[in-house]
Amino acid sequence: MGTYSPEATARAGLTHIIEPNDQTGAALVQIAGAVEAYRLIREHRGAAPASEQQQVAELLDAHGASRATLRLDAGLERWRPRAALADPESDLKLMANLGGGIILPTDPEWPAGFEALELASPLALWFRGTAERSILHEPANLVAIVGSRDATEYGRTITAELVHDLRARGVTIVSGGAYGIDAQAHQAALADEPTSAATEGSTPPAPTIAVMAGGLNRYYPVGNDELLKSVQRHGLLIAEVAPGATPSRWRFLQRNRLIAAICAATIVTEARWRSGALSTAHHAAEMGREVGAVPGSVFSANSAGCHRLIREGAATLITDGAEAIELFGLGSQRPIPDAGQPSPGSGKDPAQGRDYDGLAIPDLLLLDALPVRTARTVDQLAIVAGLGIGSILGGLSRLASQGLAERTPNGWIRRFPQGREPQRGAPHHG
Amino acid sequence: MGTYSPEATARAGLTHIIEPNDQTGAALVQIAGAVEAYRLIREHRGAAPASEQQQVAELLDAHGASRATLRLDAGLERWRPRAALADPESDLKLMANLGGGIILPTDPEWPAGFEALELASPLALWFRGTAERSILHEPANLVAIVGSRDATEYGRTITAELVHDLRARGVTIVSGGAYGIDAQAHQAALADEPTSAATEGSTPPAPTIAVMAGGLNRYYPVGNDELLKSVQRHGLLIAEVAPGATPSRWRFLQRNRLIAAICAATIVTEARWRSGALSTAHHAAEMGREVGAVPGSVFSANSAGCHRLIREGAATLITDGAEAIELFGLGSQRPIPDAGQPSPGSGKDPAQGRDYDGLAIPDLLLLDALPVRTARTVDQLAIVAGLGIGSILGGLSRLASQGLAERTPNGWIRRFPQGREPQRGAPHHG
Repeated sequence: MGTYSPEATARAGLTHIIEPNDQTGAALVQIAGAVEAYRLIREHRGAAPASEQQQVAELLDAHGASRATLRLDAGLERWRPRAALADPESDLKLMANLGGGIILPTDPEWPAGFEALELASPLALWFRGTAERSILHEPANLVAIVGSRDATEYGRTITAELVHDLRARGVTIVSGGAYGIDAQAHQAALADEPTSAATEGSTPPAPTIAVMAGGLNRYYPVGNDELLKSVQRHGLLIAEVAPGATPSRWRFLQRNRLIAAICAATIVTEARWRSGALSTAHHAAEMGREVGAVPGSVFSANSAGCHRLIREGAATLITDGAEAIELFGLGSQRPIPDAGQPSPGSGKDPAQGRDYDGLAIPDLLLLDALPVRTARTVDQLAIVAGLGIGSILGGLSRLASQGLAERTPNGWIRRFPQGREPQRGAPHHG
Repeated sequence: MGTYSPEATARAGLTHIIEPNDQTGAALVQIAGAVEAYRLIREHRGAAPASEQQQVAELLDAHGASRATLRLDAGLERWRPRAALADPESDLKLMANLGGGIILPTDPEWPAGFEALELASPLALWFRGTAERSILHEPANLVAIVGSRDATEYGRTITAELVHDLRARGVTIVSGGAYGIDAQAHQAALADEPTSAATEGSTPPAPTIAVMAGGLNRYYPVGNDELLKSVQRHGLLIAEVAPGATPSRWRFLQRNRLIAAICAATIVTEARWRSGALSTAHHAAEMGREVGAVPGSVFSANSAGCHRLIREGAATLITDGAEAIELFGLGSQRPIPDAGQPSPGSGKDPAQGRDYDGLAIPDLLLLDALPVRTARTVDQLAIVAGLGIGSILGGLSRLASQGLAERTPNGWIRRFPQGREPQRGAPHHG
């Protein structure tokens, strides 16, 4: 077989013949091995061999899959037309010339996340790019950021922010290379230089990985040509279909399961009511991976898919990088540049409400009763606050020690420690 | 005691003396009855009567409340300063002159929802307004819509839309009479005429109820003066504190528990990270009531509280009236003007994705393989689709019957039934 191992050649050939997520093919490969499966398919003429037919049926049955189209003879029948055309050696040479190659399930860089796919796991993975491929193996530092093709400025902005925050933790951003949110995710990842803290003492991992629906010999969609070349230069392009395969609807849908499986977490930043990004999110949720979705205006059709995921309980609502990191428990072994700090635009002020949280109820009632201008006596305070004299005296001493009350010649008044002045026009919690 | 029953007079007096959610007071009233409790408090001089002291401690203990401040003697001590000033007869007369009165726990209009509050239930309810008060009794048709005081145009708009959709189902809108979202909720409810379908054969129920934190003798906040007068004219103002009581911070916080308890459901349409509306939502969630929150831009501080509720699992994400109605299962006994239809602005198009959902996987693969312009033979289709000849022939016949494929002299091509033309520049699901 020349330069390539029989296993590599067989699997390369199988990716040419068998559609993604054809579980009959996966079952046959699991039972007979890739080399024997490839031989069987190419040499198949009459009926399927009885033993393999039986074993494939049993294995599929054990996985709860037993439709007629999944029988081995039906598989051999549908694979036959393509089998004669498979030329794995030349596919492997082509990809080597394009700066790529094939990754086999036995290779150390094979994504550990694929295990969750069981019989839906790909037969091999084609790649293109020179970045360190071992990052593919470990889901823990891979996060998918996906969304609709027709992104709004809002969606693009929050996508870039999340990518930035995750990149600061050394996370590699995985997406689908499509227009809109996907493109923005890759672009933002490429724009961000990894922080020195995250990369100290090791080769910087690829900033981004694009999982493609078609063969890696060409860039698709055409409008993302330059972007995908950039991803290839600094990160990786990967696909489960052989070079030359067109990006069909089926392959797009199946590509989504790979994105979900490779990553520890999937975030949908902006998606319409029906969007491929939702299928990625559902795949991730089914595999028990963390899923986040970013909310937006209820009047924006571009956020309707995100709201749907959150409503259905398939995704957790995410508003910034800190929440993404918190939810996914990411990068705990890495230095944390600004852990847990809400981003400036988030509107969250953890200090804002602390003012009175420590006060017991009677002291809170007393605080309410303290006048800002004209002092009140202890007796007056007892009536206004609805508290006994003993509680008033104890409470005044506690509030005074916190700088919240002050004794004057005419009685007691309210004081505001620095930075806690009452808001204009908003004297009470509403 | 003149015009008023001893029970009414006693409870009116108690609302003057005992702060909202003073559970010692509630325990004493439950044990001794309101009339005796009122007498005890007014005549209290030395130590608390041993028997009542013991019983109150036991009852509070049974409710898991046994702090020192909750002992009866501590209660009698804190109630004493106000007891001498209570004048329930004149409070009752005042409220009658203002077009209001008092509702007692034995009255048929007493909110059934208060039962969930147990010892935190109010001692009586003051009201102002001429609308039918029996609506207070039944939580099923009361929905609270609350939010922050500093509302944005976005918050106001979605508040008005939800109110409109709920009013169309005959739901009465409950809120807190504050600036911002509360005011918008009341206003929108007053603006909407009830549909004839919802009111057929009965007095139209009050469109809206404002639950106030202070006494009902005055309108608070001052800027909502006109609005609250309108609520009084067409709906109801209610409060658990006696006329003359100021709206203190404590009473605002406690008022929130009443809003939550009265209603079957609470919706927060726009709220900051810390907002009284969140306390209402948490009260509702703790009582097992349905809670909804409306998402918004992650860059808007005014939506941060809603996002927080959704993230914490305290609220379900709501984007329109249909989802509110669906979640709360409201008004199922009423006619449904436009049930389940997503509103026009929602970006949800249930028909949009139906196109290919019915197809089996092999037919979907075949559909992908059908060319739009230059026809393909069955053999070519088998290769492109990765299917056996038998599947191709069966599939072509099925697709042709649905108008998705057509036989031409040179082979088969793709067809698009009316209204299903492919999108320009978006040939595939991404």
